[in-house]
Amino acid sequence: MTKLPIDAHAQPQSGYFRQGRFYFPVRVYYEDTDFSGAVYHANYLRFMERGRTEFLRACSLHQGQLSRAEDETAISFVVRAMSIDFHKPAHMDDALLVETFMAELGGASLDLEQIIWRNDEILVKAQVRIAAVRSGRPVRVPPQIRLKLTK
Amino acid sequence: MTKLPIDAHAQPQSGYFRQGRFYFPVRVYYEDTDFSGAVYHANYLRFMERGRTEFLRACSLHQGQLSRAEDETAISFVVRAMSIDFHKPAHMDDALLVETFMAELGGASLDLEQIIWRNDEILVKAQVRIAAVRSGRPVRVPPQIRLKLTK
Amino acid sequence: MTKLPIDAHAQPQSGYFRQGRFYFPVRVYYEDTDFSGAVYHANYLRFMERGRTEFLRACSLHQGQLSRAEDETAISFVVRAMSIDFHKPAHMDDALLVETFMAELGGASLDLEQIIWRNDEILVKAQVRIAAVRSGRPVRVPPQIRLKLTK
Amino acid sequence: MTKLPIDAHAQPQSGYFRQGRFYFPVRVYYEDTDFSGAVYHANYLRFMERGRTEFLRACSLHQGQLSRAEDETAISFVVRAMSIDFHKPAHMDDALLVETFMAELGGASLDLEQIIWRNDEILVKAQVRIAAVRSGRPVRVPPQIRLKLTK
Repeated sequence: MTKLPIDAHAQPQSGYFRQGRFYFPVRVYYEDTDFSGAVYHANYLRFMERGRTEFLRACSLHQGQLSRAEDETAISFVVRAMSIDFHKPAHMDDALLVETFMAELGGASLDLEQIIWRNDEILVKAQVRIAAVRSGRPVRVPPQIRLKLTK
Repeated sequence: MTKLPIDAHAQPQSGYFRQGRFYFPVRVYYEDTDFSGAVYHANYLRFMERGRTEFLRACSLHQGQLSRAEDETAISFVVRAMSIDFHKPAHMDDALLVETFMAELGGASLDLEQIIWRNDEILVKAQVRIAAVRSGRPVRVPPQIRLKLTK
Repeated sequence: MTKLPIDAHAQPQSGYFRQGRFYFPVRVYYEDTDFSGAVYHANYLRFMERGRTEFLRACSLHQGQLSRAEDETAISFVVRAMSIDFHKPAHMDDALLVETFMAELGGASLDLEQIIWRNDEILVKAQVRIAAVRSGRPVRVPPQIRLKLTK
Repeated sequence: MTKLPIDAHAQPQSGYFRQGRFYFPVRVYYEDTDFSGAVYHANYLRFMERGRTEFLRACSLHQGQLSRAEDETAISFVVRAMSIDFHKPAHMDDALLVETFMAELGGASLDLEQIIWRNDEILVKAQVRIAAVRSGRPVRVPPQIRLKLTK
């Protein structure tokens, strides 16, 4: 019978704060590259979304849970706008670091800045506007969530 | 023995120009959606890249070929910057239309505008800066290619 | 003001039956390839899923609708098992054809066979077992749906 | 000026061996799910490919490097065949574990078995046949690489 060895359990990597900014490491795999040899441009957005998800999780905000909540915290965060500069390409096996920090917390939206690093090189920079929505409609960020985002 | 019926051959859809702008239809599949029920934000960039690829193909520019060319047309087009507004979400089975047109053709780059439509609704709007590169370095768009882009 | 030219509307491609089998054309884009230069193996599964979705649509079964239905047709089709042979690689710009046909329609599942062609070459072959589920539990394929699958 | 804090550097997660099998943790993100609420079936193949890449890396085999090698180790590993059972679905935020082990090392191919776990539940099981290729043609696994795979 197939069983998982008792000491094989391990958690996927989470990120960490340094000087008020959040960092999340990402490895480049086959799936991320395209035939040019570099990472496919839209896949940097997947890396940045992982960084935002882990940033929110580090603020005790679990998006899967929020989407199933039955009180006023039942919101989703959706991307409203992005402005992205692709400075240098990443390649297979590269170890990247996704930096995320809040530039502004508005009434119904968050402005985040994100940088993808490879060692000390900046590969990609983005401004991301995130809106809070419930049943597809924009709503104010509830105070319980606002508190978690700012502590 | 498995054989393809002689009349089963058909080409994938290409797009078409109307009033100087290029249109390419896209269907939303399972793979494009996420657990929110809508299309995952980075996947709109895949739709827009398909639109750009078909726009270039309609200008007789085949990117697979260009990347293997052995003369000065051996260039790749890479995305340098994007500014994207996500207005409304698309959903499973939606029939979308990707509009692409050139806003400016610079010496070494193209500025494109792209709109994703569902019937008469605008779902996503983007400005995309594309650079010509060879062996990873920016180069001027060769005259043969410039001609195809402007005729 | 941005408006869509009245004659710019067009539908995304659907497929067609020939000799009892369903064919759906697919183009290979940047997003589908990896740094090996060929299509990333998991992306052939996306092509096959598009083929299945269009096969079902050609049988008047729209999966987005089924998932929102309020009667006994409220089912989802989920992939239970796949057996896949990757014979030859596809590359950027290739025009492919996804063949789909039903090998067996069981009480609660469908066995499909799928082949990805490039002209007369077989690139990928797969057997796919699809189960009908409601709220995550296996259910029998309702008679209305069975009828559409077999007519 | 933007600089990375000196102590912000961190490596992406690698995996580990337990009782001769290799384990690699994976987190489910937005990008992995589809509108059914569960992980899109083809995305489990991406998770398994990450597991194989880290398994090879743990054997000191870096696929990006191998593809650029100039001696007889210049090979790529390509997926020839897969047989996959999808037992239970994974969902947003789930912490998964990808188990990988070699069932057989042939002259020109490797047979791997892979299991995706969520705690003690088996979600997906697969047999994967990997072939060694050079310039698209099957080749024998070179002895230096064979040694690394079996030590």
